[in-house]
Amino acid sequence: MSTGAPEPQGRFRRLRLIVITDSDLAAPRGVVAVVGQVLRAGAPAVQLRDKGLPPRQLLPLARRLRDDTRGAGALFFVNDRLDLALAAGADGVHLGPEDLPVAAARRIAPPGFLVGYSADDAAAARGAVAAGADYIGCGPVFTTGTKADAGAAIGLGRLGEVARSVDVPVVGIGGVTVRNSLQVFAAGAAGCAVVSAVMGARNPERAVRDLLRAGTEAPG
Amino acid sequence: MSTGAPEPQGRFRRLRLIVITDSDLAAPRGVVAVVGQVLRAGAPAVQLRDKGLPPRQLLPLARRLRDDTRGAGALFFVNDRLDLALAAGADGVHLGPEDLPVAAARRIAPPGFLVGYSADDAAAARGAVAAGADYIGCGPVFTTGTKADAGAAIGLGRLGEVARSVDVPVVGIGGVTVRNSLQVFAAGAAGCAVVSAVMGARNPERAVRDLLRAGTEAPG
Repeated sequence: MSTGAPEPQGRFRRLRLIVITDSDLAAPRGVVAVVGQVLRAGAPAVQLRDKGLPPRQLLPLARRLRDDTRGAGALFFVNDRLDLALAAGADGVHLGPEDLPVAAARRIAPPGFLVGYSADDAAAARGAVAAGADYIGCGPVFTTGTKADAGAAIGLGRLGEVARSVDVPVVGIGGVTVRNSLQVFAAGAAGCAVVSAVMGARNPERAVRDLLRAGTEAPG
Repeated sequence: MSTGAPEPQGRFRRLRLIVITDSDLAAPRGVVAVVGQVLRAGAPAVQLRDKGLPPRQLLPLARRLRDDTRGAGALFFVNDRLDLALAAGADGVHLGPEDLPVAAARRIAPPGFLVGYSADDAAAARGAVAAGADYIGCGPVFTTGTKADAGAAIGLGRLGEVARSVDVPVVGIGGVTVRNSLQVFAAGAAGCAVVSAVMGARNPERAVRDLLRAGTEAPG
């Protein structure tokens, strides 16, 4: 991975592990509690994903996670909703094919605001980067039970293709575990995004530490 | 109604009739076609409301309606989604109690961008105005079949209370028809917002003309 402009804050390095929230998997502990553990373990990025709560109720949660991630020096992303991300003071938004287009988000967002995009092939990834995406979430790399609509696994080969096709960080997502995360990095990804491997872990702190170790041991 | 600052563009006057889209009611004619008729009849404001389409598909429709309303000199609002409203270049967004709070929207939106809020009592209306709302949508004034979750009608008396409680325009919504719109103005509203009375009309142009006539004949 190489990005045209220098990244003084090392933000892209923090994309090596994105922990995505899931209130069902976090239960009965609560998303805020689990994210607290995750941050104590050194998670460099957290993404709020909640398809159920209306924005009015999501905003206080987003603001709480923004405060907690800032205190820990971690990046904070909001899924889908750019307006919510901006209102919460997030570092970025993660968009999918059904959301606001990347170019539209880019025009609304202030300078330096990160826009991520989900792409499962090289053409979609290149299109998103041309439109202004700062990083690509690529998957599902492995089969996953977290996202009902995630589709069939694309595998490590395709992940590698996508990673080679763009000059922004590509983060592997979908069924990533402590055990297989090394393969994700080996395939060329700059990072892993995980949901159940951390939010559903009995010990989220240990899961984050193990995942970070895999990222450190990975080549490149 | 009186607003503190002068409104050089007469935008608030254009709130006397807000036509809200509904793709089911517009069918088989299509929202764009019906809005076209509506604009030819002189509708001063149009609001895109569609709870079904994902943002990626809503944006092209929003941009089309933005172009058409601009061409006709009408205001254009988007329901619920501030990011979509900004991406479409709308004049404003209309928010409800489940959406992003008015104060949060105000901070994100550029100067001059209009923020409307749905409030069915004086306290909620005053709170929204204090948070920065430019106008209030108040209802349902009459019983309506358009919005399944709209709740019981609040009546003309309550509409009047809300209108007297704030110094921004209050627009009556919910079951407003050509026949009862004069009562809405008489109760103190600055305007009417209609869905089925126009989108479901056999002749939307005539419905708009009749509603505009009622607004002109109304006192104040």
